[in-house]
Amino acid sequence: MKTEVGMVNAFVEGKTELDAATAEMIRRRSALLGPAYRLFYERPLHLVRGEGVWLYDPEGEAYLDAYNNVTSIGHCRPEVVEAIAEQAATLATNTRYIHASILDYAARLLATMPDEIGHMMFTCTGSDANDLATRIAQSYTGGTGIVVTETAYHGITQSVSEFSPSLGENVDMGPHVRTVPAPDAYRMGEGMADAFGDAVAAAFADLRRHGIKPALFICDGIFASDGVFDGPAGFLQKAVAATRAAGALYVADEVQSGFGRTGDAMWGFQRHGVIPDLVTMGKPMGNGYPVAGVAVRPEVIDEFGRKARYFNTFGGNAVAVRAAGAVLDVIEKENLVENAREIGAYMRDRMRALQTEYPQIGDVRGAGLFIGVEMVSDPEIKTPDAGLATAIVNGLRDENVLISGCAKAANVLKIRPPLVFTRDNADYFLAALERVLERTLK
Amino acid sequence: MKTEVGMVNAFVEGKTELDAATAEMIRRRSALLGPAYRLFYERPLHLVRGEGVWLYDPEGEAYLDAYNNVTSIGHCRPEVVEAIAEQAATLATNTRYIHASILDYAARLLATMPDEIGHMMFTCTGSDANDLATRIAQSYTGGTGIVVTETAYHGITQSVSEFSPSLGENVDMGPHVRTVPAPDAYRMGEGMADAFGDAVAAAFADLRRHGIKPALFICDGIFASDGVFDGPAGFLQKAVAATRAAGALYVADEVQSGFGRTGDAMWGFQRHGVIPDLVTMGKPMGNGYPVAGVAVRPEVIDEFGRKARYFNTFGGNAVAVRAAGAVLDVIEKENLVENAREIGAYMRDRMRALQTEYPQIGDVRGAGLFIGVEMVSDPEIKTPDAGLATAIVNGLRDENVLISGCAKAANVLKIRPPLVFTRDNADYFLAALERVLERTLK
Repeated sequence: MKTEVGMVNAFVEGKTELDAATAEMIRRRSALLGPAYRLFYERPLHLVRGEGVWLYDPEGEAYLDAYNNVTSIGHCRPEVVEAIAEQAATLATNTRYIHASILDYAARLLATMPDEIGHMMFTCTGSDANDLATRIAQSYTGGTGIVVTETAYHGITQSVSEFSPSLGENVDMGPHVRTVPAPDAYRMGEGMADAFGDAVAAAFADLRRHGIKPALFICDGIFASDGVFDGPAGFLQKAVAATRAAGALYVADEVQSGFGRTGDAMWGFQRHGVIPDLVTMGKPMGNGYPVAGVAVRPEVIDEFGRKARYFNTFGGNAVAVRAAGAVLDVIEKENLVENAREIGAYMRDRMRALQTEYPQIGDVRGAGLFIGVEMVSDPEIKTPDAGLATAIVNGLRDENVLISGCAKAANVLKIRPPLVFTRDNADYFLAALERVLERTLK
Repeated sequence: MKTEVGMVNAFVEGKTELDAATAEMIRRRSALLGPAYRLFYERPLHLVRGEGVWLYDPEGEAYLDAYNNVTSIGHCRPEVVEAIAEQAATLATNTRYIHASILDYAARLLATMPDEIGHMMFTCTGSDANDLATRIAQSYTGGTGIVVTETAYHGITQSVSEFSPSLGENVDMGPHVRTVPAPDAYRMGEGMADAFGDAVAAAFADLRRHGIKPALFICDGIFASDGVFDGPAGFLQKAVAATRAAGALYVADEVQSGFGRTGDAMWGFQRHGVIPDLVTMGKPMGNGYPVAGVAVRPEVIDEFGRKARYFNTFGGNAVAVRAAGAVLDVIEKENLVENAREIGAYMRDRMRALQTEYPQIGDVRGAGLFIGVEMVSDPEIKTPDAGLATAIVNGLRDENVLISGCAKAANVLKIRPPLVFTRDNADYFLAALERVLERTLK
């Protein structure tokens, strides 16, 4: 049997000495939940409380959350808790009955998108959203072929796991799936946009050559698991053109990059000036309440909708859309898209300033509060250094600051603070990072 | 294009005159949510509030809910609302961190199952649970072949929709899927158990003959969409034996029949004295909060778990397991399994008493508060009468009583009241049913 590879920042049993209480919790966890679950960090965290940008363990230790992309307006936001509590006490039925709040929310959400995208459908998870988008795109095109980047993650259903190569080599990719290299501007320079577009075109041509009709190209708005590749803004246009030329649809996976995180706009794809055929979303949509969805051009869903009904028992239930509405309220009222842009730019500037002292910081990139920091052992030839990235992730955990890692070579720090991150929070983060860099590299 | 067939009790635009407010809501709904969504009833319901067994429309009209299997301990139960509100205000993180409540809940749930089933995994929906169970079973057996009943519904992900023939002929079944006739004791009589077991054996043999290695037989605990086939208790044993003889696993889909609904036990499969390899669950698990899961024998998940990690962002989050724990509390404290058995038996007895006067009631069956009433035009030759079933479903809706329909021939009333249904609620239901029968058949 092949052993699992590729989960960055996974706890590995027996590698690190743990305190007795944590060890016992992990033993009990394995006994009850079985062997498929993974924990973060060399020393996993036991959490009991969250508030704003902070998480707390049973001893009351506070951890600065610079990672969780679900609670993106802050842990336990009173506005969302109240909306959930009030609606759960009033009505929590499904979409087989008429209720007004799903319509009000769908209208608000669609107003944030290009006019071409006219309908909104609801699921519970980003995986389900990508699963549904795949069904719709395959039905519309009559094809099955899918192109993704080589370390993409799009979800965990059987269908979606077949085009999520970051799950590792033990999870088979489908015979109808082709991968293209990530759009790595750090290594590919100015030719990246052309090369990326050409790779997508070649992948679709290869599918055709194997008798597999193209259906869709899917990528997230910032290539998160590939290593956080944000730009240059606009580079996606050639890949999207190649997709359309192949007769396939472009699915924008905004599960991670959506809802303002990239700072320049509500949706990651908007940075690139492209208009998707389907947009999928999830994680931060309900700030923790399970809600996700697919936005779609009417002509793409027309035939599928008439011939194959869609019903999701919990998807778009009355509580889900109320929670999601409260999240939109906060994003708008507190100008969180703008905050993500400003604080994110500040953090990147400060980290770039560290590159002179620490040349192992090969690249600092990202958009808004979605930041990637690539660690290399040799900045000249840009040699990935996974060990160093792991040391920094766990070093920050020892400083009570939470981030994780990503990328094919597992050498990129994935930094994704709540959108409510303040300048003070950023300074706290940066001070901790400097201490860890000093400890680790000097 | 084939037009969609098979959704029992779907609203069809233009078939019935609607009041202006409802018509406008439906127009807006189609514009925003697109063509794939369906509503119930000839005159769809607009709901604004729920409490216990009652649902309310904007005019304050009360509807007796004898259908919704999600809010099975009653709409808006304060115990669950409170658990959700308290936990959402405290912490709502995922399974990459340690938290105690998921362990406590998993332990409680596993204690309700046979000892052979040792691990509990969490998803958000029943579809996801069946999708995950399929991945695990196919990994364990090395096969792909799936056997289901001919009008089965197991979910909406791409993988699961391929073995959910009740979605209609426009949703293709997979080439690795075979169907067997439903276990229709009403028509097949005493030979049913043998015939059903033989059909499962033959379906697996046919898969083998086509070079497709068997992976799993999946059925729900009461064959809900097939027409609610409950017995005789124990009849499943031969089908399960045939499954194991073929080298496949038996997946018990308890998404609809679980959590006490069948009255005799916590899980539908327990009525049959069989022990599944995997058990999937969902709908009533959180009484409306999106939570679902898979329980599995340790040896079945062992290799999958080591080589292919499982992570579901919202699955088993801290709020989900608190809500689910509150549901278990209520089921236990209020003896709802026993209540389901008693009230269900009472309702069936009373409806059977109507058969003399209304021979079109061909069969009254079910277990606990999962009841099927088969309508026939000729009781001698048991001719299904879909039109009559539809008339009764909509007639009851006009009496402010909510049920729906099911079965291949769309002629079975599906009656599935909350587990907190009282004798008074049952009498209210039965009186309405008698009025509708009289109006419709006399």
